[in-house]
Amino acid sequence: MKVKVIVTLKSGVLDPQGKAIQQTLNGMGFANVKEVRQGKYFDINIDESDEQKAKLSVEEICKKLLANQVIEDFKII
Amino acid sequence: MKVKVIVTLKSGVLDPQGKAIQQTLNGMGFANVKEVRQGKYFDINIDESDEQKAKLSVEEICKKLLANQVIEDFKII
Repeated sequence: MKVKVIVTLKSGVLDPQGKAIQQTLNGMGFANVKEVRQGKYFDINIDESDEQKAKLSVEEICKKLLANQVIEDFKII
Repeated sequence: MKVKVIVTLKSGVLDPQGKAIQQTLNGMGFANVKEVRQGKYFDINIDESDEQKAKLSVEEICKKLLANQVIEDFKII
């Protein structure tokens, strides 16, 4: 089955890439864009038919590899 | 209001970064991970209270800046 994960910076952690996008958008005429925060998205295809077990594996994968929990949060969707 | 966007590579487009993550996970003992595809996630805070209008603006933003529609798809969530 496929499990989708979003990894985002914790609020309070500076996001210069998101800031650059926001400033570019303002410059392009999208004046009403107040903030942009960029994160990562992962589509994981795992050979496990039990949804609960698959999500538990992905949670472990996030903690061990995909997310740096000091500065990032992850969400399995 | 906040609008969330996911930008992913179209199926068929090679994703070496996702492949590297998959191989790393296999090496870490997650043998049942068959494929990983990486994408981008954006959290856009737009000064527009009408949800329909906000989403239309974000769609334009995706087409003009965030996604390369030759190789990428975007989804407003």
